[in-house]
Amino acid sequence: MDRTNSTMIILQAKAEKKLSWQEIAERVGAAEVWVATALLGQATMAPEQAAKVGEILALSPEVTASLTTPPFRGNAIQMPPSEPALYRLYEIIMVYGPAFKEILNEKFGDGIMSAIDYEMHIDKREDPNGDRVIVTLNGKFLPYKKF
Amino acid sequence: MDRTNSTMIILQAKAEKKLSWQEIAERVGAAEVWVATALLGQATMAPEQAAKVGEILALSPEVTASLTTPPFRGNAIQMPPSEPALYRLYEIIMVYGPAFKEILNEKFGDGIMSAIDYEMHIDKREDPNGDRVIVTLNGKFLPYKKF
Amino acid sequence: MDRTNSTMIILQAKAEKKLSWQEIAERVGAAEVWVATALLGQATMAPEQAAKVGEILALSPEVTASLTTPPFRGNAIQMPPSEPALYRLYEIIMVYGPAFKEILNEKFGDGIMSAIDYEMHIDKREDPNGDRVIVTLNGKFLPYKKF
Amino acid sequence: MDRTNSTMIILQAKAEKKLSWQEIAERVGAAEVWVATALLGQATMAPEQAAKVGEILALSPEVTASLTTPPFRGNAIQMPPSEPALYRLYEIIMVYGPAFKEILNEKFGDGIMSAIDYEMHIDKREDPNGDRVIVTLNGKFLPYKKF
Amino acid sequence: MDRTNSTMIILQAKAEKKLSWQEIAERVGAAEVWVATALLGQATMAPEQAAKVGEILALSPEVTASLTTPPFRGNAIQMPPSEPALYRLYEIIMVYGPAFKEILNEKFGDGIMSAIDYEMHIDKREDPNGDRVIVTLNGKFLPYKKF
Amino acid sequence: MDRTNSTMIILQAKAEKKLSWQEIAERVGAAEVWVATALLGQATMAPEQAAKVGEILALSPEVTASLTTPPFRGNAIQMPPSEPALYRLYEIIMVYGPAFKEILNEKFGDGIMSAIDYEMHIDKREDPNGDRVIVTLNGKFLPYKKF
Amino acid sequence: MDRTNSTMIILQAKAEKKLSWQEIAERVGAAEVWVATALLGQATMAPEQAAKVGEILALSPEVTASLTTPPFRGNAIQMPPSEPALYRLYEIIMVYGPAFKEILNEKFGDGIMSAIDYEMHIDKREDPNGDRVIVTLNGKFLPYKKF
Amino acid sequence: MDRTNSTMIILQAKAEKKLSWQEIAERVGAAEVWVATALLGQATMAPEQAAKVGEILALSPEVTASLTTPPFRGNAIQMPPSEPALYRLYEIIMVYGPAFKEILNEKFGDGIMSAIDYEMHIDKREDPNGDRVIVTLNGKFLPYKKF
Amino acid sequence: MDRTNSTMIILQAKAEKKLSWQEIAERVGAAEVWVATALLGQATMAPEQAAKVGEILALSPEVTASLTTPPFRGNAIQMPPSEPALYRLYEIIMVYGPAFKEILNEKFGDGIMSAIDYEMHIDKREDPNGDRVIVTLNGKFLPYKKF
Amino acid sequence: MDRTNSTMIILQAKAEKKLSWQEIAERVGAAEVWVATALLGQATMAPEQAAKVGEILALSPEVTASLTTPPFRGNAIQMPPSEPALYRLYEIIMVYGPAFKEILNEKFGDGIMSAIDYEMHIDKREDPNGDRVIVTLNGKFLPYKKF
Repeated sequence: MDRTNSTMIILQAKAEKKLSWQEIAERVGAAEVWVATALLGQATMAPEQAAKVGEILALSPEVTASLTTPPFRGNAIQMPPSEPALYRLYEIIMVYGPAFKEILNEKFGDGIMSAIDYEMHIDKREDPNGDRVIVTLNGKFLPYKKF
Repeated sequence: MDRTNSTMIILQAKAEKKLSWQEIAERVGAAEVWVATALLGQATMAPEQAAKVGEILALSPEVTASLTTPPFRGNAIQMPPSEPALYRLYEIIMVYGPAFKEILNEKFGDGIMSAIDYEMHIDKREDPNGDRVIVTLNGKFLPYKKF
Repeated sequence: MDRTNSTMIILQAKAEKKLSWQEIAERVGAAEVWVATALLGQATMAPEQAAKVGEILALSPEVTASLTTPPFRGNAIQMPPSEPALYRLYEIIMVYGPAFKEILNEKFGDGIMSAIDYEMHIDKREDPNGDRVIVTLNGKFLPYKKF
Repeated sequence: MDRTNSTMIILQAKAEKKLSWQEIAERVGAAEVWVATALLGQATMAPEQAAKVGEILALSPEVTASLTTPPFRGNAIQMPPSEPALYRLYEIIMVYGPAFKEILNEKFGDGIMSAIDYEMHIDKREDPNGDRVIVTLNGKFLPYKKF
Repeated sequence: MDRTNSTMIILQAKAEKKLSWQEIAERVGAAEVWVATALLGQATMAPEQAAKVGEILALSPEVTASLTTPPFRGNAIQMPPSEPALYRLYEIIMVYGPAFKEILNEKFGDGIMSAIDYEMHIDKREDPNGDRVIVTLNGKFLPYKKF
Repeated sequence: MDRTNSTMIILQAKAEKKLSWQEIAERVGAAEVWVATALLGQATMAPEQAAKVGEILALSPEVTASLTTPPFRGNAIQMPPSEPALYRLYEIIMVYGPAFKEILNEKFGDGIMSAIDYEMHIDKREDPNGDRVIVTLNGKFLPYKKF
Repeated sequence: MDRTNSTMIILQAKAEKKLSWQEIAERVGAAEVWVATALLGQATMAPEQAAKVGEILALSPEVTASLTTPPFRGNAIQMPPSEPALYRLYEIIMVYGPAFKEILNEKFGDGIMSAIDYEMHIDKREDPNGDRVIVTLNGKFLPYKKF
Repeated sequence: MDRTNSTMIILQAKAEKKLSWQEIAERVGAAEVWVATALLGQATMAPEQAAKVGEILALSPEVTASLTTPPFRGNAIQMPPSEPALYRLYEIIMVYGPAFKEILNEKFGDGIMSAIDYEMHIDKREDPNGDRVIVTLNGKFLPYKKF
Repeated sequence: MDRTNSTMIILQAKAEKKLSWQEIAERVGAAEVWVATALLGQATMAPEQAAKVGEILALSPEVTASLTTPPFRGNAIQMPPSEPALYRLYEIIMVYGPAFKEILNEKFGDGIMSAIDYEMHIDKREDPNGDRVIVTLNGKFLPYKKF
Repeated sequence: MDRTNSTMIILQAKAEKKLSWQEIAERVGAAEVWVATALLGQATMAPEQAAKVGEILALSPEVTASLTTPPFRGNAIQMPPSEPALYRLYEIIMVYGPAFKEILNEKFGDGIMSAIDYEMHIDKREDPNGDRVIVTLNGKFLPYKKF
């Protein structure tokens, strides 16, 4: 089964069961961002994780199995994103990208922050002046190989 | 003076004086990412901050003054970015964007993470399996107004 | 239910009941632009507002419920817009955008007009030389944070 | 003289004389947005208006004369705009455009709001919860001709 | 009913009845270009005009009614047009556009030819060296408002 | 000499001599649109026409000679055009293009209106309700060859 | 019937009958490239040619009739073409285009090779070092009209 | 020396010496299209050919030497080409491309016409109904390797 | 049968039979990359190869036959590729492309590496520091023809 | 010094000294592809490597120093590449990309071939049927992290 279809079925099952991403993630035993990413068709689950999800959301074996196949990533969003919540991330690259590159090179040398050996967390910090979204990007530094 | 020109002069002065972004930021008394962002032509400094930078880097009054003018942001990078270190951030939006939007809505309601009432930090976490880049995005949650 | 589908059902129900946006808005107790925006799949209603709309337009519970889910915004229009009424707004950005930015910075400092803490109204001013469209954009000024 | 060059000279003269757009507009006797638009190379001044500007900013006759020539509009901004203050206007078209078109047609019939027989104002409304930017778009309604 | 669907039904009915655009236009009592434009989903008919078309082409009430709703214009053609007959018009803008703008400004002042208060006619002029297509664009001149 | 440079020199000479396109065209003995097109670098003049222009505008032999070389057409305008006066022509293709193609095929058969064996005129029709711009496109019909 | 659909039916019928383009073309009495072009939805056949094709391929009257309607050309290929056999033609324009334009102007004057009064042939020349594809483009020279 | 610069110098020298591409080609002893292609910066000459050109056009050793360096091809034209003479070739790919691919595969099998082991000729065929441009593309057929 | 459909059926059959590309390739007697390429709709199989695949995967005669028809290549991927595994190849062209061109010209002369007379292999080299992907591109050098 | 400028100076020095990339690479003690990549402004050299290059090519200290600064990669090539030698690599992604992704996932699991911990070699294999270009891509496999 195609990941686009399985994503639609999963979102519907999640809505019907009124489960939050956080609740599903806890029962799977993995991070909330990663579980949501996998269920939205952008990551691959281990068979036991998929089985757990299938049980929680009462999915068919076909949908469950689809979660263990490496997806074709990145095709769920058009760039630049029209959705304001995503566009702000895009804008951050344009405004803070030059500083990111300068500081990365200065602190680590010539290389990149991996987007593969990578994890990400989204937290809420309550604040009387307005709650704050705290997003943590955590990627392995990969130095350019000289050969 | 145009910010593109002042950025080039500043980068050259910084290289000649062999100062790191961290050292300049400490002397300005502001965060490293923000100071680099301002000196790269993407943020506006208060007059006393600009004066401090002018002193540290021995800049002309014109260059110093340019730092206090609101810039035309975002024009320093073509999208999608050709530079691999920046492209990885772009890829993260495509792969993790759907989960970001889902979790943001679930945890905070309908709205966005501000990219204006926003701060960002880049840290190095040493790790025997390879050091890690930790980027923290910290933005105020802005709920959509119903009117 | 997907917002694109619920929008089509809502437009058809509105046409059959021969209700104007103004009439629906009054019964919902919110502004005309906002109610139309929500019913066109670009804003989220509170449950009681959605219930009211469901009652007025005799919608199914699925369609009614869809109005309370945060939508994926901005995907209803291709840019630049081919429709002349929308293209004129696009053109206004190109022609008056430089002045907007200059005056905004001069009057308010470095920052933006929020498109989230934002409201908008469309009024008709009768005029013997041709009626005039008065569009009011009203957004909170957000100053760039220095950190 | 080319409008791009005259704009740069005008901005520099304005900065040196420490004049605001509001002050220049009052002395020219026209609206702030329009005067800024003309001086930024996007509108044509009457000869007496240009002469007044030339006097205020001590411009050369060539620069002054350039203000009376119809410009090639819209070439000062790349679309979509990278600058956040301008992007928010672009986003408003994507999010509120469908409602704008629906309400315009319902209130006025089939046609457009002119961007030529058009005026625009930017005001500041002080507010303890954060000042608000009030932008008024005022364009003649043009009904589509049936022929 | 959606204009794209009604256009397909209309084209089929027109082909079956072997009626030309000219014949339909004469019976509707309006210009050929305008009637074709409306029936192709790019203009709005008055109810009595739509009724006349419905009668001529034996359309269902739904299709007939669709002709009186303001359409979302311009979405029937991708730009640049791949079809050679349309591309030639596009090329004319690129080659003759600079002269059009210069002469328009010189003859009329700063402004535009309206595409709304506008009519258009396509005629055939027989010529022994090859018949000629004569297209007449007739739009109201709209001077830029100074405010 | 490059046509872009010769165009700039010609426009400056025209402005200094305060000659209109109409006056130059009359002295060259050709149509106003065509003469403007040639002097703006989009058409090729016969040597005697170029000589006449050189005399009227007091051009150097290099500039005069450049007018007789076939130019690389179409590079003076970015598409879609940002300038409103040109964009309206572009919009006309999107809105009236489908009707143009239908009527052309019906009146002439399968083929195109040539943009090469082509002429164009721009006239002003005074009207108490606002003057009208009349643009006449006159191109040879070219039937598709069956081979 | 829509040309896209009739093209699919024709290709299937051709495959089932195991007829080559050359065989069909001979029976229609026209050139191979042209017949293939028409059957692929990019040219218009005379009624007797369409009837002949209908007979050869045993097509329904609707499919046969569709061949006599002027198509909307050029929409079968995305540019740049992803298919290597077509991309090579695209590359030839980029590499040999400048020479083509120079030589055309030198040999014929200012004008173009028509793509309407045009024919094209594809031949195979056997060669021990590898057979060669010989494509002949044959278009009427159209000189630019001076008016 | 950069090929863009050497092309400009060569075109100027060719104009001053009033030599045609055909004349230069004959003296170089190669085909007109190829010699023009090389001199326009899109092909590499053998040293003796470059020397011959240097002699004919009285070029400096630097310009002459540049002709023997493999160029970065294809950067002289923006696609789609704005110039009508080149656009017609582009249009031919869109209209006749599907037939080209079909016939190529049928006559030769699965593969392409090489654009590298390739030659091209442009001829003039006089015709009382208008001279014709005959362009011959001659490329080696390259069958796809099965491995 | 259309290659897009046959590809989906083949992938499903392969998954059900739990066969690897390597296993299928060995039974077909061809290279793994090539067999996968053909079965993914990007290469043409000889009839006996297709028959073998049909037998291994229990395909219908229509699906089997589709494998012997030259496909329209390259339409399975949008460029730039959103999928990270493919984007890395794209990035390699941007970063290492200039060196590739320089070294190719220096080692082989002016020409290209064929993508038609071409083969490709993907191997796994185990490594305690992380296994390595070894991709071998092997294409015939094609020198530019001088004519 | 900017890498674009230093690249031009280096290419000129290399041409004057008639050194091949292979010769320079041997004296630097690194791989040919990598040394060319660094000297073309796409990689960072260690100080002693840069010093060696400076000595071989007699570069100024500024140029030499520029080689040790991390560059902004990927900006030397427009995509898709107009140059045929580079376009063939781009085409390989479109044609062989689907097989690459399938086989990578099957042989290694879900992940990518690194373009950072990566090396590349270009070799010439002599062949009586035409020499072959052998390009070896060698990148560390990076498995997607589950978190």
